[in-house]
Amino acid sequence: MACMKKSGELEIGDKMGKSNEQYLLDTEAETDDDESNKGKEMDSVEMMFKDTAIPPWKEQLTLRAFVVSAMLGIMFSFIVMKLNLTTGIIPSLNVAAGLLGFFMVKAWTKVLEQSGMLKDDTFTRQENTIIQTCVVATCGIAFSGGFGSYLFGMSDTVAAQSSDANSRQRDMNVKNPGLGWMICFLLIVSFIGLCSVVPLRKIMIIDFKLIYPSGTATAHLINSFHTPQGAKLAKQQVRELGRFFSISFLWSFFQWFFTSGDHCGFQSFPVFGLKAYDNMFFFDFSTMYIGVGMICPYLINISLLLGTFLSWGILWPIIETKEGDWYESGLEPGNFHGIQGYRVFTAIALILGDGLYNFLKVLGNTFHKLYNQIQNKKSCAVLPMGPDDKEISYDDQRRKEVFMKDQIPTWLAVVGYLGIAAIATVTLPRIFKPLKWYHVLLIYAFAPALAFCNAYGCGLTDWSLASTYGKLAIFVIGEWAGKMQGGVLAGLAACGVMLNIVSTASDLIQDFKTGYMTLASPRSMFVSQVIGTAMGCVIAPCVFWIYYQAFPDLGVAGSEYPAPTATVFRNLAILGVEGFGSLPKHCLSLCCGFFSVAILINVARDIAPKKWARFIPVPMAIAIPFYMTGSSVAIDMCLGSLILFIWETKNKADSEAFGPAVASGLICGEGLWSVPKSILALAKVSPPICMKFLSKDMNDNVDLFIETITR
Amino acid sequence: MACMKKSGELEIGDKMGKSNEQYLLDTEAETDDDESNKGKEMDSVEMMFKDTAIPPWKEQLTLRAFVVSAMLGIMFSFIVMKLNLTTGIIPSLNVAAGLLGFFMVKAWTKVLEQSGMLKDDTFTRQENTIIQTCVVATCGIAFSGGFGSYLFGMSDTVAAQSSDANSRQRDMNVKNPGLGWMICFLLIVSFIGLCSVVPLRKIMIIDFKLIYPSGTATAHLINSFHTPQGAKLAKQQVRELGRFFSISFLWSFFQWFFTSGDHCGFQSFPVFGLKAYDNMFFFDFSTMYIGVGMICPYLINISLLLGTFLSWGILWPIIETKEGDWYESGLEPGNFHGIQGYRVFTAIALILGDGLYNFLKVLGNTFHKLYNQIQNKKSCAVLPMGPDDKEISYDDQRRKEVFMKDQIPTWLAVVGYLGIAAIATVTLPRIFKPLKWYHVLLIYAFAPALAFCNAYGCGLTDWSLASTYGKLAIFVIGEWAGKMQGGVLAGLAACGVMLNIVSTASDLIQDFKTGYMTLASPRSMFVSQVIGTAMGCVIAPCVFWIYYQAFPDLGVAGSEYPAPTATVFRNLAILGVEGFGSLPKHCLSLCCGFFSVAILINVARDIAPKKWARFIPVPMAIAIPFYMTGSSVAIDMCLGSLILFIWETKNKADSEAFGPAVASGLICGEGLWSVPKSILALAKVSPPICMKFLSKDMNDNVDLFIETITR
Repeated sequence: MACMKKSGELEIGDKMGKSNEQYLLDTEAETDDDESNKGKEMDSVEMMFKDTAIPPWKEQLTLRAFVVSAMLGIMFSFIVMKLNLTTGIIPSLNVAAGLLGFFMVKAWTKVLEQSGMLKDDTFTRQENTIIQTCVVATCGIAFSGGFGSYLFGMSDTVAAQSSDANSRQRDMNVKNPGLGWMICFLLIVSFIGLCSVVPLRKIMIIDFKLIYPSGTATAHLINSFHTPQGAKLAKQQVRELGRFFSISFLWSFFQWFFTSGDHCGFQSFPVFGLKAYDNMFFFDFSTMYIGVGMICPYLINISLLLGTFLSWGILWPIIETKEGDWYESGLEPGNFHGIQGYRVFTAIALILGDGLYNFLKVLGNTFHKLYNQIQNKKSCAVLPMGPDDKEISYDDQRRKEVFMKDQIPTWLAVVGYLGIAAIATVTLPRIFKPLKWYHVLLIYAFAPALAFCNAYGCGLTDWSLASTYGKLAIFVIGEWAGKMQGGVLAGLAACGVMLNIVSTASDLIQDFKTGYMTLASPRSMFVSQVIGTAMGCVIAPCVFWIYYQAFPDLGVAGSEYPAPTATVFRNLAILGVEGFGSLPKHCLSLCCGFFSVAILINVARDIAPKKWARFIPVPMAIAIPFYMTGSSVAIDMCLGSLILFIWETKNKADSEAFGPAVASGLICGEGLWSVPKSILALAKVSPPICMKFLSKDMNDNVDLFIETITR
Repeated sequence: MACMKKSGELEIGDKMGKSNEQYLLDTEAETDDDESNKGKEMDSVEMMFKDTAIPPWKEQLTLRAFVVSAMLGIMFSFIVMKLNLTTGIIPSLNVAAGLLGFFMVKAWTKVLEQSGMLKDDTFTRQENTIIQTCVVATCGIAFSGGFGSYLFGMSDTVAAQSSDANSRQRDMNVKNPGLGWMICFLLIVSFIGLCSVVPLRKIMIIDFKLIYPSGTATAHLINSFHTPQGAKLAKQQVRELGRFFSISFLWSFFQWFFTSGDHCGFQSFPVFGLKAYDNMFFFDFSTMYIGVGMICPYLINISLLLGTFLSWGILWPIIETKEGDWYESGLEPGNFHGIQGYRVFTAIALILGDGLYNFLKVLGNTFHKLYNQIQNKKSCAVLPMGPDDKEISYDDQRRKEVFMKDQIPTWLAVVGYLGIAAIATVTLPRIFKPLKWYHVLLIYAFAPALAFCNAYGCGLTDWSLASTYGKLAIFVIGEWAGKMQGGVLAGLAACGVMLNIVSTASDLIQDFKTGYMTLASPRSMFVSQVIGTAMGCVIAPCVFWIYYQAFPDLGVAGSEYPAPTATVFRNLAILGVEGFGSLPKHCLSLCCGFFSVAILINVARDIAPKKWARFIPVPMAIAIPFYMTGSSVAIDMCLGSLILFIWETKNKADSEAFGPAVASGLICGEGLWSVPKSILALAKVSPPICMKFLSKDMNDNVDLFIETITR
């Protein structure tokens, strides 16, 4: 596998992969001759770090790193849990983790230094990365543990509010939260994701050169903090990063004041009119996604926009006219028997088609290469020097070298995976009675493929679809188990197993990307992730337990912590046990159609000449807007593309040198704001103002109403 | 008077006066040696126009200019009338007039050329200015005619809704609109303003170098359209102007969509919170006033902000705590017996103090100079070459030369003034029975002083306070006439006489500034203004008559055309006849205090050393925010200052070369948008969305309400 060459369809990642790695190079226009390359190297990131020794992997794992990680992990777990139980939308905390990790260690060092206990201690960017990955692993569990979704969806509270509230099989389909079994469950399912990450790591980062926008942004941030003195361009970049970081942070802060209530504030700004807003065409003024759009390749952003047009512009309005015919009319907006069913399942079909095609192609390529290798008896160098590698930059070379040095044996991953799978197969059916051992085996057989799909998609778009894969597991296992045999509970449990693997895969490869760009040893990263995951398995259930004990009406609709996603998951599971046949009319045929289209598009990408292939959109990216409601990421990201495009046209050198710094700043600023925002929410400080958008007629009504009550 | 030197207190205008006139000079840093001055001259505006002949003043007055003016005049009169009768807020139409005049003549010329009727005809910037001033004179009457304020306030419709609706003297205090007497009245009072403009012209523009931001912006626009080929910097400036013109226009257009209803849209954005919004501290996203702020001196903008803080931040909140003590509680927001009384009358006191001090000082200086002149038997050169004039730029020299060439004899103005005053004294009491001949004489005795004050204030801040002076006349004459003798009607009529003179003075000197900068002959300007005024005296009443006949419920509160200002004016007149004693408690003492403060500040400015004097704020500018409600011009203008300041710090040369172009673009864009906006309003196309700002509690109520009615 180590020799596998990058495959044709992934060139979409190339343009930015290159520009990301080289962005710190000279500000001159592109030149390809060898002499100027020498000059370029002098300006590269790793050139600046040349004289900074990289500590051996064991020394990267310091005690203080894990103390800081635990503190941040607990803090972030509280934040994530709160969000789980209120809105169900969790922002990426990678950047905040990297940043706060840096500041906390700096503060720690300063305190120790001033107390005389510590002298001449250096805080390396590798240690910073270790903290960041440990924190992400810890608070990742707070999300993938499903305390706001599948796990809590099993409880009596949620069952009482679900669509089978009066069902006879309710006892069989309910399992109330318990601190003991939750910790056990998490310990069993959380580590298996780590094992699947190990072999994916090299494919995603070295071979595919995937972007992982958040991971890249975090890496830029960490690198900029630790840049040795004297690098002029780096200083300018840090200043740009700092400036746009502040702008993004302050802008998010400013926006917050106007978001008291639903559909309030800039995030619901109907820039193109109310009609377009209802169909998801609006600009939500998110600097974070503008930054993500600047880092992602143009093609991805265009694909997202295409997906938005296709789904919200054409498909959903057409299907909505069939209301009452294709599906029952008057359903709740989130009901999977209605329009929401079409949205989620067509998206799943596209994602599966694209993901599986690429998975099978890579697998085929890998076996083909392996076969050739065995045939030719050629040994595989650690650094493959194919013709493509001649133009490799110094940064890439150095990073690849470090990344490949401290290997984690693949046999360890395989043994670990099989071992954990075996334990899970035995123990999980004991925790969840309706879940049978063959269900667990089935999940573990398919999980690596889906983990690959998710890690790949996340690398392209920064969007983890873990919960989508989880929903798929609900359906498959739920239907298999059958309602009479507690299929709802089995489905939810299966969702948990699947979601954990898939979510860990994308989160931790994101971190590996950061580690790759900060020359952190993969081995120390792995250890940090194991420790972080272990902490998370204990911290997250405890944090949930605090909420569960403190608020008796947790999960009740209309209360302070309604946990809306838990109800959605349970309803999905109830739909699941009734089989695919219970999907709305024509939904299955649409899914089959989209699945085929995804495969056809990929075939077209592989067959078409290179100059045309790069204009063919990416099905994975097209699928994402399909089932997103209340969000307009595509517009934001395309705006980011547009800004970068104009910048490139006006001053290519400048845009290459500072584009990624600006983008990282924009991402980090809004990312960090999520921390005080969550703290404010925990402290029950709600924004004072609602910026509301009303149609003319509605406004006239509201004005009359306001006049009545203020009199 | 022609020899009068600029006096010390007006140096606030100097900085910008200079930078405005020299803004087209080189982009190098300031150098004062003679050699570089030569280089500078090559880049000046008038250098570029050196080879373009200035047509003699009679040739500037072409037939097509007046045909175009009449067409535009009618269009703008409709727009202004509509605004009069709906909101009462009239934007400055100078820029739109200049721009549309240019395009219409260009189109006209093109049509004639293609039909073969016209060959080799040049459209000069002078002709463009003539059109602009004629249109402004015409549609100025639509405002100063008082169809939405004093004139319509005399009608039965308004009287029935006023606070003396049940008064016994109602018959004596009512005069219903009639086409005949309205045209007569306007013809009598409108021309007298022109006569007072003639002597003020030179003082304001040449001696004081006042800015007249709108006039300056219009001049830049006209100059840029007519710039001969080959001037590189000018082209760049035109491009910048065009870019910011588009931005401003499109931004205003975008804003419009969200302004369905009161307190909707960006113009009501509580940037600093709802509490601050209620106290007028907010940013209303007006690009026009950002541009005005960039053109006005820093001191003016700071004074405006100081005035806002002083009044809305300190004074009004304190006075509001006295509600029920100092004044009756529970009054309507616009009632002059309440807080609005304090606002308007303290502002009037400050403005009067400042204006009268300067008026008397200038008058004293003038007589002093005249006396010296007669004593020394020295003749006064047309171009005074004092020591100050050595540093005068080529632009200034050339403009002064042209401006002083075609003189309008002062005797003509004086004779005209006296003649019209005599006619008015005889005829006005016949139209309005309660108005006595000595009332008219009193107004005409004081009017020139007040016209001076207003022209001076408008030159500094772009803000005409004509209606404030009109309100003063209501008070003085109304009280004098007495309620029993029809004082209300007399007051309103007096207001009309006063408002016409004062409004014409500021509007037309604004145009003279444009003419000064485009080398239009003052004589042709004067003729154009006379013709424009004559057209306005017929057009405006006719346009009003159309509305009056078409909408029977014109002026009824709650109808489509409620004419809210008319009711305000009538209520003010009713307050007036009860005398100053009927003002709210302590209001008169506050007014006396502010009057003295204004004079003291001016004395301080004259006494203090020059380096300190320039930090002493301007009372006139402080007064403006006092009585403005629902507007936050000070914040906008200070933002403009801030932008210019940062720009100057970063790149002084750039900011000097392009600042005024950017500012003009910003002013013109929003200015021109007022035309399609008004047309949309006339066509009853209202914006589709309201962007509303609600407090958290109110929002919760409104959300419940919306849920109720959409169910």
